[in-house]
Amino acid sequence: MVDSINVQPNSPKLSSEEESCLDYYYDNPEDLPGNLDLEPNALPPEITLIDYTENTVNQIKISNPEDCIPYLKSDSVSWIDMLGLGNKIAWQQMAKVFQIHPLIIGDIVNVPQRPKIIHDNNQIIIITWIVRINSDFEPFEKEQISIILGEKYLITVQEKPEDDCLKPVRERIKNNQGIIRKQKVDYLAYSLLDTIIDGFFPVLEEYGERIEKLENEIVFNPARHSMQKIYELRRELLTLRRAIWSLREAINILIRDGTNLISPDVLVYFRDCYEHTIQLRDIVETYRDLASDLMDIYLSSVSNKMNEVMKLLTVISSIFIPLTFIAGVYGMNFNPEVSPWNMPELNWRYGYPFCLLIMFITAVGLIYFFWQKGWFENLSITLKEDD
Amino acid sequence: MVDSINVQPNSPKLSSEEESCLDYYYDNPEDLPGNLDLEPNALPPEITLIDYTENTVNQIKISNPEDCIPYLKSDSVSWIDMLGLGNKIAWQQMAKVFQIHPLIIGDIVNVPQRPKIIHDNNQIIIITWIVRINSDFEPFEKEQISIILGEKYLITVQEKPEDDCLKPVRERIKNNQGIIRKQKVDYLAYSLLDTIIDGFFPVLEEYGERIEKLENEIVFNPARHSMQKIYELRRELLTLRRAIWSLREAINILIRDGTNLISPDVLVYFRDCYEHTIQLRDIVETYRDLASDLMDIYLSSVSNKMNEVMKLLTVISSIFIPLTFIAGVYGMNFNPEVSPWNMPELNWRYGYPFCLLIMFITAVGLIYFFWQKGWFENLSITLKEDD
Amino acid sequence: MVDSINVQPNSPKLSSEEESCLDYYYDNPEDLPGNLDLEPNALPPEITLIDYTENTVNQIKISNPEDCIPYLKSDSVSWIDMLGLGNKIAWQQMAKVFQIHPLIIGDIVNVPQRPKIIHDNNQIIIITWIVRINSDFEPFEKEQISIILGEKYLITVQEKPEDDCLKPVRERIKNNQGIIRKQKVDYLAYSLLDTIIDGFFPVLEEYGERIEKLENEIVFNPARHSMQKIYELRRELLTLRRAIWSLREAINILIRDGTNLISPDVLVYFRDCYEHTIQLRDIVETYRDLASDLMDIYLSSVSNKMNEVMKLLTVISSIFIPLTFIAGVYGMNFNPEVSPWNMPELNWRYGYPFCLLIMFITAVGLIYFFWQKGWFENLSITLKEDD
Amino acid sequence: MVDSINVQPNSPKLSSEEESCLDYYYDNPEDLPGNLDLEPNALPPEITLIDYTENTVNQIKISNPEDCIPYLKSDSVSWIDMLGLGNKIAWQQMAKVFQIHPLIIGDIVNVPQRPKIIHDNNQIIIITWIVRINSDFEPFEKEQISIILGEKYLITVQEKPEDDCLKPVRERIKNNQGIIRKQKVDYLAYSLLDTIIDGFFPVLEEYGERIEKLENEIVFNPARHSMQKIYELRRELLTLRRAIWSLREAINILIRDGTNLISPDVLVYFRDCYEHTIQLRDIVETYRDLASDLMDIYLSSVSNKMNEVMKLLTVISSIFIPLTFIAGVYGMNFNPEVSPWNMPELNWRYGYPFCLLIMFITAVGLIYFFWQKGWFENLSITLKEDD
Amino acid sequence: MVDSINVQPNSPKLSSEEESCLDYYYDNPEDLPGNLDLEPNALPPEITLIDYTENTVNQIKISNPEDCIPYLKSDSVSWIDMLGLGNKIAWQQMAKVFQIHPLIIGDIVNVPQRPKIIHDNNQIIIITWIVRINSDFEPFEKEQISIILGEKYLITVQEKPEDDCLKPVRERIKNNQGIIRKQKVDYLAYSLLDTIIDGFFPVLEEYGERIEKLENEIVFNPARHSMQKIYELRRELLTLRRAIWSLREAINILIRDGTNLISPDVLVYFRDCYEHTIQLRDIVETYRDLASDLMDIYLSSVSNKMNEVMKLLTVISSIFIPLTFIAGVYGMNFNPEVSPWNMPELNWRYGYPFCLLIMFITAVGLIYFFWQKGWFENLSITLKEDD
Repeated sequence: MVDSINVQPNSPKLSSEEESCLDYYYDNPEDLPGNLDLEPNALPPEITLIDYTENTVNQIKISNPEDCIPYLKSDSVSWIDMLGLGNKIAWQQMAKVFQIHPLIIGDIVNVPQRPKIIHDNNQIIIITWIVRINSDFEPFEKEQISIILGEKYLITVQEKPEDDCLKPVRERIKNNQGIIRKQKVDYLAYSLLDTIIDGFFPVLEEYGERIEKLENEIVFNPARHSMQKIYELRRELLTLRRAIWSLREAINILIRDGTNLISPDVLVYFRDCYEHTIQLRDIVETYRDLASDLMDIYLSSVSNKMNEVMKLLTVISSIFIPLTFIAGVYGMNFNPEVSPWNMPELNWRYGYPFCLLIMFITAVGLIYFFWQKGWFENLSITLKEDD
Repeated sequence: MVDSINVQPNSPKLSSEEESCLDYYYDNPEDLPGNLDLEPNALPPEITLIDYTENTVNQIKISNPEDCIPYLKSDSVSWIDMLGLGNKIAWQQMAKVFQIHPLIIGDIVNVPQRPKIIHDNNQIIIITWIVRINSDFEPFEKEQISIILGEKYLITVQEKPEDDCLKPVRERIKNNQGIIRKQKVDYLAYSLLDTIIDGFFPVLEEYGERIEKLENEIVFNPARHSMQKIYELRRELLTLRRAIWSLREAINILIRDGTNLISPDVLVYFRDCYEHTIQLRDIVETYRDLASDLMDIYLSSVSNKMNEVMKLLTVISSIFIPLTFIAGVYGMNFNPEVSPWNMPELNWRYGYPFCLLIMFITAVGLIYFFWQKGWFENLSITLKEDD
Repeated sequence: MVDSINVQPNSPKLSSEEESCLDYYYDNPEDLPGNLDLEPNALPPEITLIDYTENTVNQIKISNPEDCIPYLKSDSVSWIDMLGLGNKIAWQQMAKVFQIHPLIIGDIVNVPQRPKIIHDNNQIIIITWIVRINSDFEPFEKEQISIILGEKYLITVQEKPEDDCLKPVRERIKNNQGIIRKQKVDYLAYSLLDTIIDGFFPVLEEYGERIEKLENEIVFNPARHSMQKIYELRRELLTLRRAIWSLREAINILIRDGTNLISPDVLVYFRDCYEHTIQLRDIVETYRDLASDLMDIYLSSVSNKMNEVMKLLTVISSIFIPLTFIAGVYGMNFNPEVSPWNMPELNWRYGYPFCLLIMFITAVGLIYFFWQKGWFENLSITLKEDD
Repeated sequence: MVDSINVQPNSPKLSSEEESCLDYYYDNPEDLPGNLDLEPNALPPEITLIDYTENTVNQIKISNPEDCIPYLKSDSVSWIDMLGLGNKIAWQQMAKVFQIHPLIIGDIVNVPQRPKIIHDNNQIIIITWIVRINSDFEPFEKEQISIILGEKYLITVQEKPEDDCLKPVRERIKNNQGIIRKQKVDYLAYSLLDTIIDGFFPVLEEYGERIEKLENEIVFNPARHSMQKIYELRRELLTLRRAIWSLREAINILIRDGTNLISPDVLVYFRDCYEHTIQLRDIVETYRDLASDLMDIYLSSVSNKMNEVMKLLTVISSIFIPLTFIAGVYGMNFNPEVSPWNMPELNWRYGYPFCLLIMFITAVGLIYFFWQKGWFENLSITLKEDD
Repeated sequence: MVDSINVQPNSPKLSSEEESCLDYYYDNPEDLPGNLDLEPNALPPEITLIDYTENTVNQIKISNPEDCIPYLKSDSVSWIDMLGLGNKIAWQQMAKVFQIHPLIIGDIVNVPQRPKIIHDNNQIIIITWIVRINSDFEPFEKEQISIILGEKYLITVQEKPEDDCLKPVRERIKNNQGIIRKQKVDYLAYSLLDTIIDGFFPVLEEYGERIEKLENEIVFNPARHSMQKIYELRRELLTLRRAIWSLREAINILIRDGTNLISPDVLVYFRDCYEHTIQLRDIVETYRDLASDLMDIYLSSVSNKMNEVMKLLTVISSIFIPLTFIAGVYGMNFNPEVSPWNMPELNWRYGYPFCLLIMFITAVGLIYFFWQKGWFENLSITLKEDD
C-alpha cells in the first residue's frame, strides 16, 4: 500500500540506491535501532481498533497488528489505539504493517521526548504530553502520547495503560456526538490533539491557585519553607513552559508547511489548536513572572519581620538600660557619712520615691518617643497578624 | 448573497468535497460546536440595527436576525449591534443569516479570548477588549467586544449589556459628525477600533498615577502592604501588556496581509491605530520597568529603616552600658576598712561627685563621637519624616 | 502642482472612487479630523519663508500659507519654518496649499508623538524630538519638531516658539557656509535632522556626568535619597531610550525603502545619521546598565553601613557586659562574717586592686581579639570617610 | 584524486590565478600557517586505519599518512583515526594526502575551538567537544574532537590519546552490530557525532544531581561555601551552554545547507542529532535557571538564619533586662532608717519573696508573649534542623 | 585612475547631476566637512610608504601624499601607513589623491567611532579599535585604527603615533615571513585586521584574571571597595562588549555582501577573523555573567559577615546577661534580719560558692547550647579566614 518512505520533505524522488537503504528496514523489520528503551520481557501493548464511517462503528481488540490490514483497505476511518509502549516484537510488526521509520519508533518508545511533529510524505507523527494533577502541591504528572496520522488510519500510543485520557473522543465516536463521524481521519487527529491541549488548562489553573495560596501565605505569614515551595513551583512551571513552547512550535510548523494529509478546512481547526497553545504560553509566562515576584515579596517579608524583631529589642533595651543605670548609681557604696557630697540623696526623706519618679518619667518619656515614631503600632499589627 | 466560506486565506478554490463539509454547517445551523459557554436559559441579546447612508439614518430594534436581510441587500451601511452574548438560538440564527463559521462563534461567546483578528474571504473578525477603571486601587475591568466586518454590514457583540461604550460612534452617526457618514463600512470598523484603543489610554494614565503615589509612599513611609500593592500593580500591568501585545500583533497582520474588504485609503487609518498600539506598548513597558524599580526602592527603604533602628539601639547601648559598668564598680562591696587599697574612693570627700563627673565626661565623649559620625542627624530626619 | 495624495506606498493607481474620497479633504479643507489638540483661540503660528538658491537668499515673514505658492513654483529651495503649533485656521490653509493628509496634521499638532517617519508618494514626514537640559538633576526638556519634505519645499513645525533650535542651519544658509546652498532640499532635510540628532549627545553626556556623581555619592556616602535619584535617572533614561529607538527605527525605514524624494548621494548622509542614532542607542543602553549596577552598589553600601553599626554595638557590648558582670558579682551581699566561704575576697588586702586587674585583663583581651579580627580598622575607616 | 580545494561554497569556478594561490599550499606543504600551537618536539600521532565494507574489516596501524592512499582508491569506507594532535611533520603529510586547507589544520590543532562545522566542496569538517565527568564537584573535562568527512574517507582527530571515546563505534564496526557496515561513510560520520552528543547527557545528569544536592544543602544548612559552589556550578553550566549552542547552530547549518557529501536518507539521522542538541539546550537552560533560583534561596536562607539569631538575642535580652532592672532597684542604698519612704520593702517580712514573685511573673509574662508570637517554635525547629 | 565615487552600493549608474555633486568635492578638496575634530595647528602625520612585490620591498618616508602616485600605478602592493591623525591640509591632499569621501574622512579623524566597515565601489573602509592593557586594575587603553583598502593600495591611519602596533606585519613583509609577500593587497588587509583582533585576546585574558582575583577577594575577605571594583570591571567589559559586537557585525556584513576588492580565497581568511570575533563575543559575555554573579556573591558575603557579628553579640549577651541578673539578685539589700524569708542565702555557710556554682552551670549550659548549634565552629572559621 505504501511503497516508499521519505522523511526529508520536498525531496523530488528517491534514487534506487536510497530506496534500497530504506527497503532494508521494511524487509528486515527486526532490525530496529539498538537504543530502544523497552524492557526486554515487557508485555505486548493492548491494541484496540476502532473502525468507523458516518453510519457504522466497529471496536475490536486485536493482538497482532497484521489483523488491521483488511480494515486499512476499506474507506472507513481506522483508529488503532495502543495502550502501553509494548515490546520489541510488537513494534517490529507495527513497523512492517504501517511502514514506520525506525527513528520514529525510537521517538515513540524512548520517553520522554520533547513535543514535536514530524512530517513524512505519507504520515504525520505528533508526539506530545498529556498532563494531569493529582493532589495539592504535588508536581503534575505527565505521560507521552504519540499520534501517527496516515491517509486512512490513525495510530495512538499511550505511555501508561492505566490512564486512558482519550476516552471522551472514543465516547463521541460511539455516540455519534458532534460532527466527528461525518469527518475523515484528519478531523480525528484534530479532536485528539484538541483533547490533549485542553488537558493543560486545568493543570495551569491549579498552578494559578497555588500561586494565590502562596501569595497569602507569604504576605501574612512567611514560613521557612515558603521559599522552597516557590522554588518547586518555578521548577514545575519551567518544565510545563518548555513542553508548551515545543508544542506551539510543532503545531506552527504543521500549519505553515501544510501537508497533503490534512484538508484545508480541517487545517482551520488546527489553527484553533495553535491559538490555544499561544494562550497556554501566555498563561505560563504570566505565572512564571508572578512566581518570580513572589520571591521578592518573600525576601521583603523576611526583612520586614527582622525589622520588627529589631524594633522590639530596641524598645526594650532603650527603656530598661537607662533605668538600670539609674538604679546602679544609687547602688554605689560611696560613704555618705564621710562628707555631705557623697550621695546625700540616700539619706533624703523622699530620696527613694524621688528616684522612682525619675525612673518613671524616663520610662514614660522613652515610651512616648517610640509611640510618636509609630513603633508600637507596627508591633501590635505584627502581633495581630500572627494570631 | 454569500455562497461559501473559507477561513484559510489564499486557497484558490474549494473542491466540491470541501464545500459539502462547510455546507453542513449552514444547512444545519443548529449544529454549533458543543463547547459554547452560554447559559442554557440566557435571554436573547438586544439587537439594534443602524442603517445609514450619507443622507439617511435608520435605527431599529430587531428581535430576529433574519429581519436584517432586506437591509443587507441595499447599498447602505448596516451596523448590527448586539448587547450581551445572547443564547444558543440567537447564534444559530446569526450563523445562518451572516454565514459565520462555528469556530468564530466559539471565539465570540467563550470569553475571555486573547485579542485577535481572523481573516476570511468574506469577513474580517476583530476580537478585542474594552478596558475601564472604576475606583482607586481596584483592578481594571475588561469586557470582550467582537466586530465582524462584512462587505456591506458590520456586527458588534458586546459582552456586558450594561456598559455601552460604543455610544460615541453611534452619536457621531446620528449627528453626522466628522466624515463617518460619507464613508463605507470599513471606516465604521476603524472608528470602532479607534474608540476601543483610545479607551486604553485613560486606564494606563490611571496606572501611571498609581505608580507615582506608590513611589511617594515607598520612599517616605514604606508600609508593610506597599510590597503587596506593587505586586498587584505588576500583575495587572502584566495582563494589560499581554492584551496590548496581542492587539498590536493582530492589527499588524491585518495591515500586512491586506484584504479585499478594506480600501487602501481606509487602511491608512488602520495604520494609525497600529501606531497607537505601539504607543500603548511603550507606555506599559515603561510602567512595568518602573514598578520593578519600585520593588528595589522598597527593599532599600526597609534596609534603611532597619539601619536607623540599629543606630538608635547602638547609640543608647553604647552610652549607657559603660556608665552602668562604672556604677557597678562602685557598687562592689570590698571592705575599705580592711586595707587602704580596697575602694578608698568610697570614703573620699568628693568621691561621689568625682564619679558622677567621670560618668558625665564618658557620656559626653560618646555623644560627641556619634554626633561627629552624623548619626543624630539621621535620627532626627527619621523622626521628622515619620511625623 | 500636486494632484493627488496616497499615503499607502506602492499602490499602483487610485481608482476614481478612492480619489473622490481623498479629494473630499482637499476640497473641504475645513474638515480636519476632530481630535486635534489645538487650543481654540490660539494665535496663528509665526511663519518664516526662506527661499534660496546657490546665489540668492530671501527670508520673508508670511501670515498666510498661500503667500508661499509663487515661491513653490520656482526652482529654488523653499523652507517654510513654523514656530508654534498655531491654530485650526492656519492648518486648514496649510492642508490646502501643501496637500497634507489630515492624519499627518493630527500627528504634528497632537504632541507628543513617538519619533517616526511617514512615507508619502509626494512627501516624507519626519516627526522627532529635540531634547535639551537646563540645570543639574532636572529632567531633560523635550520639544516635538516635524519636518515635511516635498519635492522643492520643506516645512518645519516647532512646538515651542521660544526656543529656536534650528538657528545654526539658518545661519549656515544665510552665510553660505559649507555646501548647503549648493544642494537641493533633501540635503536641507538631512542638515536639520543631523542638527536635531546632534542635540541628543550633550544631553546624554550630562546624564553620564550625573551617573558619575551618583557613583561617588553612593560609594562614599550613601544618603537616603540616593536611591530616589537613581530611580529618577532610570526613569528619564527610559524615556530617552524609547525616543532614540523609535528614531533609529524610523531612519532605518527611510534608508531601506528608499524614496523618490532623496537622491542617492544625499542618502549617504542619512546613513551617517543612522550611524549616529546607533551610537546614541549604545550610549543610552550603557547608561541604563550602569544605573542598574548603581542600585546594587547602593544596596551593598547600606548593608556595609549596617555591618559597621552592628560591629560597633558588638564591640562595646562585648567589652562592657563581662566587666559589668564582674562588678555585679562583688556587689552581692553575701555575708562574709557567717563563714570564710562567703566572699572572702571582699576582706582581702588587695581584693579591690586584684578585681580591677581582672577587669583590665578581660577588657584588653577582648580588645585584642577584636583588633586581631580587624574590626577597629574598619571602624576608623568608617569614621574617616564620614568626616 | 582531489584536484582543487575551495572553502567558499557556491563559487562557480576558480580562476587560474586563484588556483595557483591554493596550489601553493599543496605544492609546499611545509608552509603551514605559523600559528600552530604544536609543541616542536611532540611525538607523531598514533594513526589507525579502519577500512571496511559490508563483509570485510581491516584495521591497520600506520605511521605515514601516505600509506592510506591505496585504501582511498577502493570503494570501501576508510576511517583514519588519529590519537593525539601530533606534530608539524605529520600535518604536513596529512595536508598533502587529504588536501586539507591550512586554516582548517589550524582549527584542528589549536585547541580549544568553539564547536563548528565547515563546508568545503569536497570535505565537511566537524569540530566539537567530548565532555566527561570524573568525580563529585569537579568541573567536567573536555576534549576537542575533529571529524573530516570526505567522499570515501573519514578522519577523526582526538586531542587526548589516553581517552578513546570512539571505542563503541569501533566495536560496532568490528562486530557488525546494527546497520553501520551496510552504510556509507556519511552514516559513519553520523554514528560518531551521535556518540559524541550522547556523551553530553550523563554530564548534564551529573549537574542535575549536583543542583539537587545543593538545594538540600542550602535549604536545610546553608554553609558559607554554598554560594561559591553555586557560582562554580553556574560557571561550568555557562561553558557547557556555549558549547551546546555552538553545536546546535553548526548542525543546523549542516542540515539547512545540505551538501553533496551526505545522502538524503542519512540526513534524517543528522536531523535526529539536531533534535538531541535542542534537548541538551533545553536541559542546560533549565539548569541555569534553577541555579539562579538557588542563589535567591541561599540569600533568603541566610536572612532567615539571621532572623533566628536576632530573635534569640531579643528573647534573652527582653526577659533578663527587666529582671536585672528590678534587682538593681532593690540594690540601691537608700537609707530606710531616715524615713519610712525610703525603700520600706527592704524591711518587709516578705519583701524578698514578693520581689522574686514579681520577677517570676514578669519573666513568665514575657515568655508567654513570645510563645504566643510563635518565636519558640521557630527556635526549636532551628535547633532540630541543625542537629 | 579612479573616476567617480559612489558610496551607495548597487546604484547602477550615476546621473550627470549626481556626479557633479560628487565632483564638487574632488575639484575643491579644501571643502572638507566643517565638523572635523582636528586641532588647527596640528603637525602633519608621519607617512610611510611600503611598496612590495614577491621579490622587492621599498620603505620610504613621504611628506606629501602626492608622492605616492607613481607607486600606485605599478602592480606592486602599496601600503601607506599614517601615524597620527594629522592636520586639515594633509587630509585635503589625501582626499584628492585617493578620492576619499568627506564623510569617511570625518569618521577617520573624529575619534572614537564604533567599529564599522563601509563599502564603496572602489574602496573598503575598516574602522576599528586596538586595545591594550598597561597595568593591574587600570582600564584598558583603546586607539582607533582605520584601514582603507583600494584596488592596489592600502592606507592605515593610527590615532596615537607613539604606539605602533602594526609592527609585526611590517616585520613579516620585510623578512618575507609566511605568504604575505606572495599575496595581493586584500591579504595585507586581512593580516592587519587579524593582528588587531588578536590584540583583544590578551586584554580579555587580563580581565579573566581580574575576575578570578576578585572572586578570591570577595569570598574570603569582602572589603568595602570590592563592590566598586566589580562595578568598574563591568563598566569596562560593557565598553569592550560593544566594540566587539560592532566589529563582529561589521565583518559579517563584509563577508555576506562580498565585494569586488576581495578575492574568494582571501575571503576564507576574513571568515576566520569572523570566527575569532564570535569567540571574543562568547568570552566577553561569559565574563559579564560571571561579574554579575560576583555581585551576588559579594552581597551574600556581606550578609554572612553580618550574621557572624550578630552571632558573636548574641553569644556574649546571652551568656552574661543571665549571670549579671543572678549577681544583681544577690546585690539586693533586703534585710535578712527582719525575717527569715528575706534573702536567707546571704547568711548561708556556702551561699557564695553555691551562687558561683549556679552561675557556672548556667554559663556552661548556654555555651553547650551554642556549641551544639555549631555557632562556635563558624566563629573560629571566621577568625581563621581573617588572619
